[in-house]
Amino acid sequence: MTYPIQTATGQTDRYPSRIGSEPSVLERQDPIVYGRAEDGPLDSARLTLYEKEGFLSLESFFSTDEIQAYLDELARLRDSRSECRAPEAIIEPDSGELRSIFAIHKHNAVLRRLCMHPRLVAIARQLLGGPVYIHQSRINYKSGFRGREFYWHSDFETWHVEDGLPAMRTLSCSVSLTPNTEHNGPLMVIPGSHRKYVACVGETPEAHYVASLRRQEYGVPDEDSLGRLVAEGGIVAPKGSAGSVTFFDCNLMHGSNSNITPLPRSNVFIVFNSVDNRPQAPFCGLPPRPPFIAEREDFRPVGD
Amino acid sequence: MTYPIQTATGQTDRYPSRIGSEPSVLERQDPIVYGRAEDGPLDSARLTLYEKEGFLSLESFFSTDEIQAYLDELARLRDSRSECRAPEAIIEPDSGELRSIFAIHKHNAVLRRLCMHPRLVAIARQLLGGPVYIHQSRINYKSGFRGREFYWHSDFETWHVEDGLPAMRTLSCSVSLTPNTEHNGPLMVIPGSHRKYVACVGETPEAHYVASLRRQEYGVPDEDSLGRLVAEGGIVAPKGSAGSVTFFDCNLMHGSNSNITPLPRSNVFIVFNSVDNRPQAPFCGLPPRPPFIAEREDFRPVGD
Repeated sequence: MTYPIQTATGQTDRYPSRIGSEPSVLERQDPIVYGRAEDGPLDSARLTLYEKEGFLSLESFFSTDEIQAYLDELARLRDSRSECRAPEAIIEPDSGELRSIFAIHKHNAVLRRLCMHPRLVAIARQLLGGPVYIHQSRINYKSGFRGREFYWHSDFETWHVEDGLPAMRTLSCSVSLTPNTEHNGPLMVIPGSHRKYVACVGETPEAHYVASLRRQEYGVPDEDSLGRLVAEGGIVAPKGSAGSVTFFDCNLMHGSNSNITPLPRSNVFIVFNSVDNRPQAPFCGLPPRPPFIAEREDFRPVGD
Repeated sequence: MTYPIQTATGQTDRYPSRIGSEPSVLERQDPIVYGRAEDGPLDSARLTLYEKEGFLSLESFFSTDEIQAYLDELARLRDSRSECRAPEAIIEPDSGELRSIFAIHKHNAVLRRLCMHPRLVAIARQLLGGPVYIHQSRINYKSGFRGREFYWHSDFETWHVEDGLPAMRTLSCSVSLTPNTEHNGPLMVIPGSHRKYVACVGETPEAHYVASLRRQEYGVPDEDSLGRLVAEGGIVAPKGSAGSVTFFDCNLMHGSNSNITPLPRSNVFIVFNSVDNRPQAPFCGLPPRPPFIAEREDFRPVGD
């Protein structure tokens, strides 16, 4: 495949996916770290690590007391029938339990504080080289006993194809509300995979996001490419106590196994996007996903 | 619940399960280690550890060359359509891939050598205090990318209720054919759980083993009991290279998470039972499961 390509709607697509019948692996076209060590708060060693591996884990970023307030809010949400029936709530396909609630930075005063926390925003601004807004936020419950796996994926592949983010100038921040152990289905990443773009096969069905948030079927990377990425970079599962934070690049391949332990693996997930990387029309040519999954209107920088 | 109880068929049942509407936790009525250190090969420190934790992991038990021969045989079996159609072959419900093949000590010359390996049998004899035969054997493929989880269970619960093993004088031996890492869905055990018997709720439907070997629905321990066992004993996942071996008591609570990594987690599983603990009629009152799952005829000791 040669790229960039021109889409049917006249867009220039530097990261085409879901258009061929064979998977392919393209080189990343964008920087990884946009800011400088002088901008702080991350020093140059940490910036270099993020650049190389595609993620950065910071232990004890939040105190136990701060985390407890967010956990209490999660418990309240989980037990609230009205919250679980909201369109922003995603339910586990088998058990009917709460899996995620989206757009928590808009609808929940307690969790908004966390999503816009100045210490998180400062790191996002440094890595992305300027003002950022929240493209997506959610709380993942990942219950004990019946927590389902999340298969390998690059977030950017979906955000590009389905939401229209043009460039890799976006990152995720995962805040652990419970301990991440080797047993309770922790986030697993493939270091270095953010430098390659795995173009997936198939097409994007209309309004498939309702099912895909529960169980992924489109934008799934092929096994050969995954095998090669793991052979090169290995697999790392950042572990730590509640209050640890992991920043990772939008194109880093990641996933998690199921969780049969009694220990939930709950986290808050915030996606910061550069204000200079506003979404265009989705590159798949379909209508965009709803705003609780992908912001399209409010690009006001957070932290200003 | 008071026990032992008398079953409808007049058996004395010291470990009743699947008869009440509430789960209950009973004390173990049988020894854990039946033999002595003088009998060898395990020294008294290792016997004490097995007694306390309910399992024992031995790294580099088999050489790389020995393991390669078994891996080659697994690859041959996986690619053989006739082998995969045999009644002893269990297929993953979603992907249609090979999950397990049972009774390998009867039907496969290469794997029979492993199942009857004198070094394995010697340890089984010591732990169970005398001659043993093979109650069950299987090879678990647990493929990469799509390996499903095995939910928590005590093997003894099923072997007692459905196969009629009267006492806890049985153990499993898991031989790793591939590395067990923290990422590829390794066996997880709850140390100390072998001292408690979690009686499960519900009943046993007839011939349900066909489905239960793919996905467990009966004999499932309740979440409260599991939570208490984990609170007391924690969770341990014995890890190691190919060729490591884990012995574990028939009543040890164990399970494993899914495996989305490219790395398969294949192992051979052999169940040794004391010749003095031959199966009776199943305690659920139903016909016994087929002999490829639970031996009922050939009690000749192995290793003699």
